[in-house]
Amino acid sequence: MALDLTASSLDITRTICDIPSVSGDEAMLADAIEQAVRPLAHLEVIRFGNTIVARTQLGRAQRVVIAGHIDTVPINDNVPTKDVDIDGEPHLWGRGTVDMKGGVGVQLKLAAELTEPVVDITWMWYDNEEVAAALNGLNLLSAARPDLFQADFAILGEPSNGQVEGGCNGTLRAIVRTHGMRAHSARAWVGENAIHGAAPILARLAEYRAKEVAVEGLVYRESLSAVRISGGVAGNVIPDLCEVEVNYRFAPSKSAADAEAHVRGVLAGFEVEITDAAEGARPGLDAPIAQQFVTAVGAEPRPKYGWTDVARFSALGIPAVNYGPGDPHLAHHDQERVPTAQIDAVERGLRAWLTGA
Amino acid sequence: MALDLTASSLDITRTICDIPSVSGDEAMLADAIEQAVRPLAHLEVIRFGNTIVARTQLGRAQRVVIAGHIDTVPINDNVPTKDVDIDGEPHLWGRGTVDMKGGVGVQLKLAAELTEPVVDITWMWYDNEEVAAALNGLNLLSAARPDLFQADFAILGEPSNGQVEGGCNGTLRAIVRTHGMRAHSARAWVGENAIHGAAPILARLAEYRAKEVAVEGLVYRESLSAVRISGGVAGNVIPDLCEVEVNYRFAPSKSAADAEAHVRGVLAGFEVEITDAAEGARPGLDAPIAQQFVTAVGAEPRPKYGWTDVARFSALGIPAVNYGPGDPHLAHHDQERVPTAQIDAVERGLRAWLTGA
Repeated sequence: MALDLTASSLDITRTICDIPSVSGDEAMLADAIEQAVRPLAHLEVIRFGNTIVARTQLGRAQRVVIAGHIDTVPINDNVPTKDVDIDGEPHLWGRGTVDMKGGVGVQLKLAAELTEPVVDITWMWYDNEEVAAALNGLNLLSAARPDLFQADFAILGEPSNGQVEGGCNGTLRAIVRTHGMRAHSARAWVGENAIHGAAPILARLAEYRAKEVAVEGLVYRESLSAVRISGGVAGNVIPDLCEVEVNYRFAPSKSAADAEAHVRGVLAGFEVEITDAAEGARPGLDAPIAQQFVTAVGAEPRPKYGWTDVARFSALGIPAVNYGPGDPHLAHHDQERVPTAQIDAVERGLRAWLTGA
Repeated sequence: MALDLTASSLDITRTICDIPSVSGDEAMLADAIEQAVRPLAHLEVIRFGNTIVARTQLGRAQRVVIAGHIDTVPINDNVPTKDVDIDGEPHLWGRGTVDMKGGVGVQLKLAAELTEPVVDITWMWYDNEEVAAALNGLNLLSAARPDLFQADFAILGEPSNGQVEGGCNGTLRAIVRTHGMRAHSARAWVGENAIHGAAPILARLAEYRAKEVAVEGLVYRESLSAVRISGGVAGNVIPDLCEVEVNYRFAPSKSAADAEAHVRGVLAGFEVEITDAAEGARPGLDAPIAQQFVTAVGAEPRPKYGWTDVARFSALGIPAVNYGPGDPHLAHHDQERVPTAQIDAVERGLRAWLTGA
């Protein structure tokens, strides 16, 4: 399916949603994007796996990365897209419309249109964002081609309701274990029940009141949640092990070590094994270029709660924000849909800033 | 392997342990038993699947069923049997020595030896006791041949340390559920965490103090235990369901309906689904024949905690007790072993009663 980048952002979004590209299966969409941008004289195009990079080389004083992932979570009877009206407002409905082909549609249109932006732009459309970090196209590209990550600012088109969402919380996972002693459940008092032993873990999590932490003027709301629990051997055995997996989402002012110490403190007295940790990203809104961007697009900055790839840019020392159409609460939802007006608004906002209008 | 029933109970036990007969694989042992008892003129022998029945028809005033299962739980490097000394006391070590081929060994010896017992005896050696009730040989036989279950008293050779253990607790299983609402764990406050919601369930189970209940002079200790817990969707999702499986072991003075009401009371406020219930068996020691038996074998009656097939006899209106060599705590244990003196003692006890000595 050929991609016409002179079409509207909405129609480009529709077309790239209707080319299914569940994580691991992005080749056809990457091909379509490459074929659409390769002929454009103002862009240097680099392909890396199913990640496409297209950049201007105008010698501008500043360079901005504008990026979006092209994969989606699995389809659930919600492709192809449909036009639907909700409360009189037109929406594009279907998998990927929110996360995040609306943002990619706008980016593709502007990549073709803006031959003379006021800053140099490195467009990046990458694969495997919805799966393990080891497969993430942006992650792999940054390892293989660090030269492409020389930039003053980065914008990720993740859904943010057309507002600017700065930074993101960090995330840490841990397994909390209780141990006991097996026995036949007919003689329960001979053993020690590890599931009963987990009662204070759940009580502490249920009572836990998460902090709100201000970072560079934005307020990040934290959380500490059980995401899994398991224990038990058989229907007639007192279990000797119970495992509770917890997920701590922590403000970007904290390091992973701070987060670990906090979780160990809350769950003091229990065996805690940290299995996974990724630091958040500070909003980065104190950089002058970021302030200019926020002013130009006319948005009110908000904190981003979910972890996004802005944290990768942040870790590379590049201030980065999320800016895209769609309600993040509808990401991965079976009724995923984006108000078409938000697609238009993000297109206008980005164009205004990139053309200095 | 031919079975010599003129050998000692210990040697018969050794031989039938060394013929592996894990549940479902009892045919070879059933064959050996059938071939050993078929030639005995004082016994009428009936084979039903891998269950062997052998009975005297002496026209005695009373009839006693003496039964034992011939299957074991899976072998774990503990067959063939070995003679071992523990603290100077000789033991037979290996799978089945306790549960319950020691008891079956004694029964086989006495079945051959006692041509003129003072009561008529129906010996039953049955398969599939260690697995689902639907496969249990005693259960199937009682449905197919209820005429074989006309008796005044029943003795099951389950391990009871050579003492008489009367009746057994009942058992009830239930699933206790909490419901919540899924959400991304980065925005935990949008959802409702079903695992956190299970905190009071575990707290109530941990705080629960089980009763001791006297029934016909024996004291039954109850218990209420979590045996399994599960919940969770993915590492970044607030779970909407948590399930706790509980097992209530209740005194034989309570009906299954009593037990259900008790569990629903303890877990009031939560969704409780009863999945399985089996009533216990009253000790049956008030029957005169039972009292004579206890006196003859010279044992002190104790309560049995674990559910055994005495409950099937009890449900048929036949008073029934457990009487066999071996420590029930070592049943299913990888170091399963029986003091040989207990095998001898049970043989002497049963012989004394059955011969009126």
